[in-house]
Amino acid sequence: MTGYYRSILLAGLLVASLGYSERPVDHLNLFIGTGYNGHTFPSATVPFGAVVPGPDCSVREWHAAAGYHYDKPTIMGFSQTHLSGTGLTDWGDFLLMPVVGSVPLVPGTEAEPETGYRSRFSHDDEAAEAGYYQVRLQDYDINVELTATERVGVHRYTFPEGEPRRILMDLEHAIQRNTTIHSYMRVHDAQTVTGYRITGSRWASSRFLYFAMKFSEPMTEHMIHDRVRQLDYDNIPELASSKLIASFRFEPGRELMAKIAISPVSMRNALENLETEVPHWNFEKVRSAAEAKWARELGKISAEGSDKALEVFYSALYRTMIHPDVHQDVNGEYRGVDKEIHTADGFTNYTVFSLWDTFRTLHPLHTIIQPERTADYVKSMLAYQSQSAHNMLPCWSMHHNDNFCMIGVHALPVVIDAWMKGLTDEPAEKILDAVIATATQPGAHKMKFEQYPQWYGQQHYLKLGYFPDELVRSGTSLTLEHAYDDWTVALMAEKMGDKKVAGEYQARGQNYHKVWDAEKGFFRARMGDGSWHPTFAPRAYHREDFKDREFTEGNAWQYLFFAPHDVYGLIDLMGGKAQFAERLDTLFTLPPSEDGTAVGDVSGLIGDYAHGNEPCHHVAYLYNYAGQPWKTQKLIHQIAREFYPAAPAGYIGNEDAGQMSAWYVMSAMGFYPVNPCGGIYVIGSPLLPNVTINLENGKAFQIKAPQVSAENIYIQSATLNGRPLNNVWISHDDVMRGGILEFVMDSSPSEWGVNSKPVPLADGQ
Amino acid sequence: MTGYYRSILLAGLLVASLGYSERPVDHLNLFIGTGYNGHTFPSATVPFGAVVPGPDCSVREWHAAAGYHYDKPTIMGFSQTHLSGTGLTDWGDFLLMPVVGSVPLVPGTEAEPETGYRSRFSHDDEAAEAGYYQVRLQDYDINVELTATERVGVHRYTFPEGEPRRILMDLEHAIQRNTTIHSYMRVHDAQTVTGYRITGSRWASSRFLYFAMKFSEPMTEHMIHDRVRQLDYDNIPELASSKLIASFRFEPGRELMAKIAISPVSMRNALENLETEVPHWNFEKVRSAAEAKWARELGKISAEGSDKALEVFYSALYRTMIHPDVHQDVNGEYRGVDKEIHTADGFTNYTVFSLWDTFRTLHPLHTIIQPERTADYVKSMLAYQSQSAHNMLPCWSMHHNDNFCMIGVHALPVVIDAWMKGLTDEPAEKILDAVIATATQPGAHKMKFEQYPQWYGQQHYLKLGYFPDELVRSGTSLTLEHAYDDWTVALMAEKMGDKKVAGEYQARGQNYHKVWDAEKGFFRARMGDGSWHPTFAPRAYHREDFKDREFTEGNAWQYLFFAPHDVYGLIDLMGGKAQFAERLDTLFTLPPSEDGTAVGDVSGLIGDYAHGNEPCHHVAYLYNYAGQPWKTQKLIHQIAREFYPAAPAGYIGNEDAGQMSAWYVMSAMGFYPVNPCGGIYVIGSPLLPNVTINLENGKAFQIKAPQVSAENIYIQSATLNGRPLNNVWISHDDVMRGGILEFVMDSSPSEWGVNSKPVPLADGQ
Repeated sequence: MTGYYRSILLAGLLVASLGYSERPVDHLNLFIGTGYNGHTFPSATVPFGAVVPGPDCSVREWHAAAGYHYDKPTIMGFSQTHLSGTGLTDWGDFLLMPVVGSVPLVPGTEAEPETGYRSRFSHDDEAAEAGYYQVRLQDYDINVELTATERVGVHRYTFPEGEPRRILMDLEHAIQRNTTIHSYMRVHDAQTVTGYRITGSRWASSRFLYFAMKFSEPMTEHMIHDRVRQLDYDNIPELASSKLIASFRFEPGRELMAKIAISPVSMRNALENLETEVPHWNFEKVRSAAEAKWARELGKISAEGSDKALEVFYSALYRTMIHPDVHQDVNGEYRGVDKEIHTADGFTNYTVFSLWDTFRTLHPLHTIIQPERTADYVKSMLAYQSQSAHNMLPCWSMHHNDNFCMIGVHALPVVIDAWMKGLTDEPAEKILDAVIATATQPGAHKMKFEQYPQWYGQQHYLKLGYFPDELVRSGTSLTLEHAYDDWTVALMAEKMGDKKVAGEYQARGQNYHKVWDAEKGFFRARMGDGSWHPTFAPRAYHREDFKDREFTEGNAWQYLFFAPHDVYGLIDLMGGKAQFAERLDTLFTLPPSEDGTAVGDVSGLIGDYAHGNEPCHHVAYLYNYAGQPWKTQKLIHQIAREFYPAAPAGYIGNEDAGQMSAWYVMSAMGFYPVNPCGGIYVIGSPLLPNVTINLENGKAFQIKAPQVSAENIYIQSATLNGRPLNNVWISHDDVMRGGILEFVMDSSPSEWGVNSKPVPLADGQ
Repeated sequence: MTGYYRSILLAGLLVASLGYSERPVDHLNLFIGTGYNGHTFPSATVPFGAVVPGPDCSVREWHAAAGYHYDKPTIMGFSQTHLSGTGLTDWGDFLLMPVVGSVPLVPGTEAEPETGYRSRFSHDDEAAEAGYYQVRLQDYDINVELTATERVGVHRYTFPEGEPRRILMDLEHAIQRNTTIHSYMRVHDAQTVTGYRITGSRWASSRFLYFAMKFSEPMTEHMIHDRVRQLDYDNIPELASSKLIASFRFEPGRELMAKIAISPVSMRNALENLETEVPHWNFEKVRSAAEAKWARELGKISAEGSDKALEVFYSALYRTMIHPDVHQDVNGEYRGVDKEIHTADGFTNYTVFSLWDTFRTLHPLHTIIQPERTADYVKSMLAYQSQSAHNMLPCWSMHHNDNFCMIGVHALPVVIDAWMKGLTDEPAEKILDAVIATATQPGAHKMKFEQYPQWYGQQHYLKLGYFPDELVRSGTSLTLEHAYDDWTVALMAEKMGDKKVAGEYQARGQNYHKVWDAEKGFFRARMGDGSWHPTFAPRAYHREDFKDREFTEGNAWQYLFFAPHDVYGLIDLMGGKAQFAERLDTLFTLPPSEDGTAVGDVSGLIGDYAHGNEPCHHVAYLYNYAGQPWKTQKLIHQIAREFYPAAPAGYIGNEDAGQMSAWYVMSAMGFYPVNPCGGIYVIGSPLLPNVTINLENGKAFQIKAPQVSAENIYIQSATLNGRPLNNVWISHDDVMRGGILEFVMDSSPSEWGVNSKPVPLADGQ
């Protein structure tokens, strides 16, 4: 029995004895996604918490981007920040490691952990629960337990008896190697240490993070070792360097706690965070508060189903509540993307907007179950735009930096969807100004082709209506995604009655036509002079001249269906519904490719449909538009079955900051935001027999499919609040008003939905 | 005619035509000390200004510690911060360099300036005046003019006609090489750039400095080159790296200005500093305001004498008004030594307390001519102590860092002297707490011998009454200096009526006895067990086992006379006044040494008396205590004549943040603070015939010596306010009450002062 099963079982037993057997937190398996390339963590955190204390197994290994990896035999220590599911490796700040005996002050290697402070561990003595992580460090016989509030990680170490205890703090350690530029540590008294570090990675080039830490007992002495100077400084009260590791020594004893707060602003703020959120030494109190927060958040969706189904469902729901995370101190201060200190006035500032991933499903899901946070996302993004050197809403923002590592301006659908759904009190004009500023940022004049970021190429798009292949990397995919984002501006402007803007952006929304090669029947690379690139290989990911040349992380097949705001227009381009459905059939049945090299992110293949990456996430739902909804229904169950096992390798690719999980959560409920902006959800096929969304407005929306099973995957009929539902979509309002959506399921395809009215673009259209 | 002579002459002509021929600013020769190892700069600054725009000729060359060196043939550019006279090389932030044509984006070498952006220059086309510096860059035919406010440097470049103009900004450049850890730059619009950098040097291990810059014309484009990635980023709005250099391009034209503000807090504060202090583009307005500030400060002492004498005197007086310098934004915010942002409440925060140097004469001089600033020094130091990781007043503080590079706790005499003289409104109890905390800081438990800083050794001093040789580097000199500092606590406690503290610190003040070897007749290295170190070489600077082993920057002869709080006690140790005077005679007449290696700081020798370094600065005055004042009188004139020429090599060693100059200024006025704490000034021999101190209290104190000349160096008689002065000292109160001190001078030694009453330790004692 491996640790994660054991922990589930133990939690279940415990809970059963307390009479809480139906608590969602009892269904969590937090090791799902920690294997393969899922990039999730088993670390302790509260929903959307800034701090995530948890184990790091290695650094700068892509498959351990969240610090931990299920296949690893050793743990280096427990750092306080972790990204969840992202394709990038970063964070891992302020590593703590409890040790006994003499230990080299370097991490050591996986093969020979005794060459450093790292320790072996076993999944047999490891547990991860909502807001709690536990592991025994075999090399030291130390039991480690972690829990957290929003800004404070609480560590409880149980040492073997009779040995002098030490806690190491490695300020150089980072999950992205060589990113620690500078650090500083100050020992205020025998129980209080503060410090900071500045990291500069490809993903966050100028990032400031501060900490304040208190120990439950006074240290007897300490030492700070500077790896740059190769010197030990015994009991020095402060030291600065890029490569510091401290050793705090305590008298022999059993239990020892450390609580550590972080702040993006100052050590003083970190100390205030610490004293405000955890003024005591009651580990269990923090742990149960953390669990209660998870219970509240996960309780927003009450699901019924088999244990296995609920394990997958709630574990996925859990992953939709890690990012965006709080980036603000308890006093309201935060560091903006302008690197200045700001005070959030009337909102909580959030960071980690991995928007290329999350605009698709995570944010639409949040408009349903996190409407208040969504309001804060809008305020966070507008503040961000006002601070941005590019005068843009975030692209891929992380701790007061934007890495622009993916494409598009997908803050637009997120902000506009929130506004369309009435979730923000920000003035429409202010939002429109912000989205237009973002959509019209011309970029730098002469950025080099090879140089990330991609935003500089928008100047060409503004002139030509597309991103010319010879000037902008991934230009074809950029054109498709910008066209979509542009359309969302038109949607908003229309609702505002601003015909001029609406007209302009409606036209821009049609820009996807500009990269449509009718002859080939594909979107493809177009040159600045209007000609097509002489070569075309629809299944290739790269061209010989450049990686990701035409499409970012995808090929022409995977991007063939990206016009979520104009699926019917795309159908027309392809010659009609039949031809469109044929192209979908082909996509899902292409034989293994011999053409070109796949990229790491492209995985979870059904034909060339790649569920492990985002560009295809809406594609299985598109049969609905072609009058063949049963094919969607079949595929949803196939994807869920094949690509979401309840196992460490439970994600077929990067979990991507909640997006892969959000796909599952919404699909499991039976509907999905093919067009992520505007409030229309397309019916798929429910995975669970009974799901109730307990809305923040006090209402409930129930999705029933009592006959659903591995075989009964086809919708036979549907009712909404008792009235027949013959269309293949529902609206956001349908959900938010509360009610019951009920499906009759069977094992054979039916005609249900075949004669649906066309899927509208937005609620009320 | 070299540039500095020319500039003096031109200034004189200009001024004469305006009728201001007696303005002190017209006597300045700001190239004095820029040669040899003076470490002064000709850069533009206002008194005590945070910003000092000026030329840098090389980096990491000790003799160019202030960036500039008179013997250098090229200029690399114009950075905004410079240390004045210090023995350490640091600062040189935010280098700007105007160029035309194609220029490699590296500094280039002195031998081949065309390998980089540096340019040749000539002293024939260079000028330095109060608040103004000018030089023509020969390689570009660009004339550069600089001026400043407290926080804003203003650059005016006159380009050759018809050439596209460029301004380079090298964010990596630093006077201490490899200290730039991280930097960030943001181009807000065509005229506004902000940024920051973090440096980590031996002297300031975690230093944050921010800038905001505006150009007088819009740039047409810009490029930031990252030396780490070896990439150019054209027109990028922001970039972070450790090695950035930016190029800002402007249309052809003649004059172009840049104004650049600095802040220790944030770019936002830097911008506020900029907009508050220089909201316009009137270079001449800034320049004349800067000159007016200097005129006001230098006008605090009206001196008469030959042009040469006034050149030396006023140039020295100028150097006493560079440090400590403002370390605070116009909104009151500053970064404390705890690295947190604080707001100075009711005072201006100052930094650069090079106290081992400046406690001797600069601070006593400031109690006379800068009483208001002295009050702020006390507040700055008390704030510093409350923020310090060591709970100590500053040792050698610089921009929210302490480098502890020299010894002693000489903030004590500075703070206590200010309190004794009634210059601070801080409560006596608070000051006493701060000085006692400093004097009782036990240091870290197990610092290694080799490791700076020295404060850790105080634990041994607290136990043994001396710093044992085998445990603490420079332990003998540390004992002497701590004993002195301790005595100042007793002085304060006595006045407060705190007999307990007074008794304890009176006893500690006698600790200098503990390193007195009566047999050898020297202070010397004592071991922890009370024995003397087996070897002793009184003229050696180092022992074979360690540099600076017994004395910091000195030998047993140079430290033989360091008991300024108990000269009569020292006389007793030596067996009486005659023996004491003999030892002085020997010191001043020792033949060139063959024993040991001299250190760079020890220079300006008369025998083994070293005027180029601080430990001897009071020694020439000590003949007064032995009844032989004429020998003091002769020596003062000899030192002034030999070691203060009006030439670039005008300081015989580091000017030391005002200390070497303060020695000259006070000596020239005829009295000197042998004991720098308590308000007693010992008479030397005036260098000028007529000097008036225009006190801030509205009164004036005049020192007349009408017969003084190169020959008439001996005091024949003296009167204070018309009454005979037969004692060899006056008090601080005598000065501050205003009045006239008049000397009758002649060419032969006289009996004047021989029968003086003993010099008291403090005013009123």
